[in-house]
Amino acid sequence: MSRPHTVAVVVGSLRKDSVSRKLAKAFAALTPNLKFDFVEIGDLPLFDQDLEATPPAQWVRFREEIAVADAVLFVTPEFNRSVPGALKNAVDVGSRPYGQSVWNGKPGAVISLSPGAIGGFGANHHLRQSLVFLNVPLLSQEAYIGNAFALFDDTGELVNEGTAEFLRSYGAAFAAWIDRIVDDVEAKQAA
Amino acid sequence: MSRPHTVAVVVGSLRKDSVSRKLAKAFAALTPNLKFDFVEIGDLPLFDQDLEATPPAQWVRFREEIAVADAVLFVTPEFNRSVPGALKNAVDVGSRPYGQSVWNGKPGAVISLSPGAIGGFGANHHLRQSLVFLNVPLLSQEAYIGNAFALFDDTGELVNEGTAEFLRSYGAAFAAWIDRIVDDVEAKQAA
Amino acid sequence: MSRPHTVAVVVGSLRKDSVSRKLAKAFAALTPNLKFDFVEIGDLPLFDQDLEATPPAQWVRFREEIAVADAVLFVTPEFNRSVPGALKNAVDVGSRPYGQSVWNGKPGAVISLSPGAIGGFGANHHLRQSLVFLNVPLLSQEAYIGNAFALFDDTGELVNEGTAEFLRSYGAAFAAWIDRIVDDVEAKQAA
Amino acid sequence: MSRPHTVAVVVGSLRKDSVSRKLAKAFAALTPNLKFDFVEIGDLPLFDQDLEATPPAQWVRFREEIAVADAVLFVTPEFNRSVPGALKNAVDVGSRPYGQSVWNGKPGAVISLSPGAIGGFGANHHLRQSLVFLNVPLLSQEAYIGNAFALFDDTGELVNEGTAEFLRSYGAAFAAWIDRIVDDVEAKQAA
Repeated sequence: MSRPHTVAVVVGSLRKDSVSRKLAKAFAALTPNLKFDFVEIGDLPLFDQDLEATPPAQWVRFREEIAVADAVLFVTPEFNRSVPGALKNAVDVGSRPYGQSVWNGKPGAVISLSPGAIGGFGANHHLRQSLVFLNVPLLSQEAYIGNAFALFDDTGELVNEGTAEFLRSYGAAFAAWIDRIVDDVEAKQAA
Repeated sequence: MSRPHTVAVVVGSLRKDSVSRKLAKAFAALTPNLKFDFVEIGDLPLFDQDLEATPPAQWVRFREEIAVADAVLFVTPEFNRSVPGALKNAVDVGSRPYGQSVWNGKPGAVISLSPGAIGGFGANHHLRQSLVFLNVPLLSQEAYIGNAFALFDDTGELVNEGTAEFLRSYGAAFAAWIDRIVDDVEAKQAA
Repeated sequence: MSRPHTVAVVVGSLRKDSVSRKLAKAFAALTPNLKFDFVEIGDLPLFDQDLEATPPAQWVRFREEIAVADAVLFVTPEFNRSVPGALKNAVDVGSRPYGQSVWNGKPGAVISLSPGAIGGFGANHHLRQSLVFLNVPLLSQEAYIGNAFALFDDTGELVNEGTAEFLRSYGAAFAAWIDRIVDDVEAKQAA
Repeated sequence: MSRPHTVAVVVGSLRKDSVSRKLAKAFAALTPNLKFDFVEIGDLPLFDQDLEATPPAQWVRFREEIAVADAVLFVTPEFNRSVPGALKNAVDVGSRPYGQSVWNGKPGAVISLSPGAIGGFGANHHLRQSLVFLNVPLLSQEAYIGNAFALFDDTGELVNEGTAEFLRSYGAAFAAWIDRIVDDVEAKQAA
């Protein structure tokens, strides 16, 4: 493989100081053999099929940014025991128009987090249910990050060595998963 | 009880000719002993905690419209085996700021639908998981409406008698459920 | 109300020193205005419709013990991110024969627990999905007990005051929920 | 590849005339390039950790039959919006003792079915949640078989050509999925 695989990163929280974003950045820094591109979702108009005739520029941009990536990573908090509306909206926008989903076949991974103990379990599995439908082959290994606020210092640096170690090994597993899924497809296309 | 209970109706689809909206209207017409008020969700900015300092006018309006209702009804399609992003965003907006959720304690019901056979099962139960967390006592009875496009004629009129019969009985059960939850609270407050 | 409401308790773990059982007993002791009866599920043959013609004695016993209770309480660990097979089997046995489910209309509550942080979230919500279908009006309030092994001393006594306080308030909420659901039914039957 | 991959088949229903079993057999017949071995679950004692010291012979047999297979297939009805207790018990038995799960890393697929329209959606996704935890890389493609009783004639023969066509293509996708997961592992072990 001559170039690193690229991963589109979708962060489920929109606020500027989002811990999800900090965690995604720490994960990217700890996974040097993948190239991560953060994709904006906060500007996406709510999905409405009536707009599809002349799709909003933000939808077009988002779809293109996902389409060119080899893989997708979701890092998200839990809102009300499920996926944040903004993140679900991004999933919906990328899935349309019918038959042109940009998610189809792309290997993926899900990391959820929470300030409390449960680590975003509800968001994690709701998102997985959508991604099964969208034919995103997901890394089986689960990633729940609890007590997430306490993992970072004031400058946004990850300061918990156990979490760093977990993210490093999760990144290695994700890279191997992408290789398995993507290279197999490429091998078949070359044959 | 001197006045009918009021129900805020949240429709999960934004398009103008939404079948969910038609179904919600048919349900309202078949349930004369409740008063239904449709609440707009298509104009709600995506939830972002940073905006909470000076909340968008649409958030304020939405929260007030839910707050004044006795009960809530969700009528929704399924997007990618879960709740549409727009509907989840509305749920999130109503749940904040922390400690001031407008959903808390309000009796509710969920009707899901789909053009195919499955009737929005995935959306239905994902929404229920959020509503459990938000302390919305939900009517247990399930409502899945499959093959929903075929139920209406060109003028948007419900033309399937079996579905009409189901909605009539579901409306009666919902009204009884609201009575049970709301009157009990009122009785305690009066005591 | 002249007598306390009775609650059938179903414990999801079969082992003798089950922490779920300890927790259920602690909960019962902290909720004096309800009467708790523990129902055995470990001896129930796996549900098989072919056996229904001459149902096993254990099925008959279990169904009767649930049927006579005013309400049901589930206290369960999580096995593989869902409900233990033994507990799901009990739910299935109680739901049959078709049209004679002993769960129907009985108010219920779910407490899940785990040795780790997540508190049995997966088991909790999977069980809720079944109980919605079975028309068990569930207390909305969630109960996840994490780090459950550390809450008890060697004699099986609950030694964590925070958990005791939580269980006390959860018991009060459950008792109020049973009153609301059961008394309403009784009032209607008397009318 | 010198021999066909083997697939352990777990059927979620225990009754003799189970439509799930008929469907599993039809699927096997339509997928000639995989070898299917049906594994009995109806005789498995309910999982109880206290029995693990001297595990029941049926547990030992079941674990061995799963362990030797290259892949696993689940074909199941839905009981009360979730997985039948008997099937969940089999999943639990195979997952223990801790650290010796026979599911780990085996590629899998889930087919759910129902006599009604919904096709076992609830069972399908609950089972998937457990299998994610157990590190079973699952074929993303969903398989819901609705109106399942009407698909077979009195002799148990599949007589619906649309379903046969679906199963044939699902079998091809499953075989390709097993190749992708298993051969990759074998290639690494050989290297």
